[in-house]
Amino acid sequence: MSNRIESIRNEMKNNGLDCWYDSGTDPHLGEYIPRHWHTREWITGFTGSAGIVLITHGFAGLWTDSRYFLQAEKELENSGIHLFRSGEKGIPDPEEWMVSNLPENAAIGFNGKCLSAAKIESWKNTFSDKKFTFIGDIDIINRVWVNRPELPINPVFRYEMTFSGESSSEKIQRIRQDLEKKHADALFLTLLDEIAWVFNIRGQDVDYNPLVISFAWIDREQAVLFVDPDKITHETAFELKKDGIVCRPYTDADDFIKENSESRCVLTDRNRISSRHYNVIKKHALKTIESDNPSYHFKSVKNETEQSGIKNAHIRDGAAMVRWMIWLNKTLPKKTLTEISIADELEKIRSRQENYKGLSFPTIAGYEEHGAIVHYSAKPETASVIKPYGLLLVDSGAQYLDGTTDITRTLALSKPTNEQKKHFTLVLKGMINLACAVFPEGTNGSNLDILARKFLWKNGLNYGHGTGHGVGCFLNVHEGPQRISLNSNVPLKPGMIVSDEPGVYFEGKYGIRLENLILCKKSSNDGFLEFETITLCPIDTNLIDTFLLTREEMMWLNMYHQTVYEKLAPLMDNDEKTILRKMTMAVS
Amino acid sequence: MSNRIESIRNEMKNNGLDCWYDSGTDPHLGEYIPRHWHTREWITGFTGSAGIVLITHGFAGLWTDSRYFLQAEKELENSGIHLFRSGEKGIPDPEEWMVSNLPENAAIGFNGKCLSAAKIESWKNTFSDKKFTFIGDIDIINRVWVNRPELPINPVFRYEMTFSGESSSEKIQRIRQDLEKKHADALFLTLLDEIAWVFNIRGQDVDYNPLVISFAWIDREQAVLFVDPDKITHETAFELKKDGIVCRPYTDADDFIKENSESRCVLTDRNRISSRHYNVIKKHALKTIESDNPSYHFKSVKNETEQSGIKNAHIRDGAAMVRWMIWLNKTLPKKTLTEISIADELEKIRSRQENYKGLSFPTIAGYEEHGAIVHYSAKPETASVIKPYGLLLVDSGAQYLDGTTDITRTLALSKPTNEQKKHFTLVLKGMINLACAVFPEGTNGSNLDILARKFLWKNGLNYGHGTGHGVGCFLNVHEGPQRISLNSNVPLKPGMIVSDEPGVYFEGKYGIRLENLILCKKSSNDGFLEFETITLCPIDTNLIDTFLLTREEMMWLNMYHQTVYEKLAPLMDNDEKTILRKMTMAVS
Repeated sequence: MSNRIESIRNEMKNNGLDCWYDSGTDPHLGEYIPRHWHTREWITGFTGSAGIVLITHGFAGLWTDSRYFLQAEKELENSGIHLFRSGEKGIPDPEEWMVSNLPENAAIGFNGKCLSAAKIESWKNTFSDKKFTFIGDIDIINRVWVNRPELPINPVFRYEMTFSGESSSEKIQRIRQDLEKKHADALFLTLLDEIAWVFNIRGQDVDYNPLVISFAWIDREQAVLFVDPDKITHETAFELKKDGIVCRPYTDADDFIKENSESRCVLTDRNRISSRHYNVIKKHALKTIESDNPSYHFKSVKNETEQSGIKNAHIRDGAAMVRWMIWLNKTLPKKTLTEISIADELEKIRSRQENYKGLSFPTIAGYEEHGAIVHYSAKPETASVIKPYGLLLVDSGAQYLDGTTDITRTLALSKPTNEQKKHFTLVLKGMINLACAVFPEGTNGSNLDILARKFLWKNGLNYGHGTGHGVGCFLNVHEGPQRISLNSNVPLKPGMIVSDEPGVYFEGKYGIRLENLILCKKSSNDGFLEFETITLCPIDTNLIDTFLLTREEMMWLNMYHQTVYEKLAPLMDNDEKTILRKMTMAVS
Repeated sequence: MSNRIESIRNEMKNNGLDCWYDSGTDPHLGEYIPRHWHTREWITGFTGSAGIVLITHGFAGLWTDSRYFLQAEKELENSGIHLFRSGEKGIPDPEEWMVSNLPENAAIGFNGKCLSAAKIESWKNTFSDKKFTFIGDIDIINRVWVNRPELPINPVFRYEMTFSGESSSEKIQRIRQDLEKKHADALFLTLLDEIAWVFNIRGQDVDYNPLVISFAWIDREQAVLFVDPDKITHETAFELKKDGIVCRPYTDADDFIKENSESRCVLTDRNRISSRHYNVIKKHALKTIESDNPSYHFKSVKNETEQSGIKNAHIRDGAAMVRWMIWLNKTLPKKTLTEISIADELEKIRSRQENYKGLSFPTIAGYEEHGAIVHYSAKPETASVIKPYGLLLVDSGAQYLDGTTDITRTLALSKPTNEQKKHFTLVLKGMINLACAVFPEGTNGSNLDILARKFLWKNGLNYGHGTGHGVGCFLNVHEGPQRISLNSNVPLKPGMIVSDEPGVYFEGKYGIRLENLILCKKSSNDGFLEFETITLCPIDTNLIDTFLLTREEMMWLNMYHQTVYEKLAPLMDNDEKTILRKMTMAVS
């Protein structure tokens, strides 16, 4: 590792840089990233999924968050790289560190392809007093990284109309109308899920998300997909062409936007484009207009076909969850199970379901105190053995051709304590109350969030994460723009899906979280909206203190369980049905 | 009137103006305005409290909102002035009208002293394509208004420490610390309630608000109050001097800020300064820093002394309300009462209370269908006679030396219908649920608002106004920055007061609103906040459908009524006590 850092420092010297900033992301600003762009790991040896690296001529530091403190400590041992525990008191963030430690006029190098334009805009403010210069066009890492992994070359396949419900040409038409409304002529797309949605394509280039490494350009005449030609069969290319889409090599994007910006007014979305591409457009375009990508918003509103596909996927996913719970109950007394082996079994069961295409994120299986770690990821060396008592939190989901799932259940492996029941019931009340909300059009996530939290708040409890995120349709398990959180001002719209996942965590003891996906739809009263719960899986009634439920909450629970039984039973054999019947029995 | 408009047009011609824009506000951007600045009324004859006037060489228009449509129609009759009913479908706002009807490069005249800097900033965007020029330094109206009323010259009195709880010198000290933190040297104050708060002064220059027409300047060395010297007694001037405050004539402000900005970095708050003063500072200051005035935020957090004064004021105000309700009940069967006479009687009863200094806003007494008009103001020619049936909505408040009140009650004058009871109870549930909220520090009004609305929403009902506004301490009945509304992102802090006033309105039928003031304070759980209800007055239990209340809501109501009895009874005679006992009887 120290050789690698020295080679970086040499390149820094050659290029007059005082500091190298590694964002740890890729040119598509994604959450999951192909190995080709694992620069953070290559530089430091740290294998966690989040972190920033800073290198100066006398110093090297890695910033990461609490889920990776232990792991980073081990992986950075003897590396000479200083670990910054982000979020801990007194720990400066990378920008604060740079302000305090770098001289005025320092030259900051970074890969401008792998940093959003919005980040650089914020840097300009943060660093205005220090007069730093930003040098984003020298990719030092690429020069020194020998045997760098190639970009993935997995086949692209078309996402059929039976699942997407809207042809690519129709989507492009809608985008063009939006551009016209905003007096813009063209749009460059960077985010892989937006491209996949617009062009009705899917692939396997990224873990957990069925994405294709690509860029895209849409103007009033052209729709261009920049993608490695080896990934596209003749048949797919032909189909794309029928939708008016031209394919060009992935590496052509830069030159293309340079030429094609010149005569056009280009819509730019700072949060969804790399600094490099933003600068190219700013420099060459006739004019630019700053606005959210229309695809970002269109994608979040699911059409009828998508909605019905997603609901079907949730029936199969719920059946898999039930089958797994039954397996767990049966196997636990007989066999040694760990957080890893139960997650593997859940994956195996899911993978037998129709249309299964993989997990939608790494399963979080947290037993007892591990359940209190919100983004827990079990490692072979530290995974807990599951005992026949205590609480088990499992947050998991899958990609099906017709939809993406994300569900959390907390299970009592023996008789829970009264305190555990109280905490579980407060979380359940929150989940139910958000699911039952009726609200006028225009209401946003910051208005609704309290419904999921207020019962915890009354007891002096809270959770540190948001209440709900958007979910794609056979796409990313996290998507915007809508969220349920105390500071989301995006109005909910019919067709949007959000998760409904309150929780409560007791460090060193246990964590409780429940998560259903809910679909926003029109309510019976004109101008009002409501949610439909689409996740179908029993809630552990052993953990409920029914005394704390109102009549309405009890009714919701019993009706939910009745629906779960009716929808899942047809997929079950007789033994399973009997157990499911028990799991979904009405409480009073 | 037409002569006035012609004289304005002559002046416009002389000064090369294509359009005159009358904002209808004053140099202090106030809600209530001395007659000297009633330019809108002078130009048009329209006496309503809100509206914009636009005059071109061939056109004159008045924009006002729904509460004044009828009145404006009458008052503008035969004036040739076009009435724009703001908020109605297809009605352009003044800016939209200007964009559509004025030629490119048109010269827009306005009084830059009577328009906020923020407004002009927004104009620059709105009108960028039309290339309008803005001419804000010619006060045409003053040139043509013969016999213009003088500025009020009412005596200024000091607001004693027994009520304010913090000396003016301490407040100025806090402001200076805040300026230092923001790397600013000086601050110019425009808003009369901020000045009154900082300098611990009160006056009678403005209806309903105990304010003094003044400006103020605070820098690291000086604290200057610009006020007509005739208003200040030697004693008051001496007391102000003890607090380090120098008084200078009101008319000196402009020259003073010019000179004193030059060597200083001045904090500017676009929303709380006139365009004229903003431009003077921008032009002359060494530097400016854009930020909210610190006084705006400090004022909103009431100290212990203010809190206890406000609570005492609410006991006396509640007693007056009860006495009035008793009077209404007794008098209604015997005498002809109108919306105006009952409001007058309420004012009379209030005026007998200790520390009474006037109403805090014009009483809204809306009988039956008038209750559905949110900002209803009874006029002699249209005021309803109160019959011994139906619903009566009364929203009123007073200024006491120790605090400002604002309360709404809706009363059933005979047996209400089941529908009325249902609507009243939904509103009551909303008021109770907001009052009972427990929430972590950092929570804002947009997070809490739903608590007051959700029961109405479930029934497809809603109200078009905010749920709560801040209230001053013997100051304005409306103050910021905190609000309870679907889009207020200002966190609630201990010591802040907000109103809690959900309602529901049925046009042509009746309106229901309940309003208590609630005080934010620390909760027993660390890091959490809650409210204490400080308005003390019975809620009409005849209007409650107890079947719709939860056990907790019922308990809140009965405990609230018990408190109301305990706090108000000592101010009542025996007959009144007996009736108050009945009014506050527990329901079940």
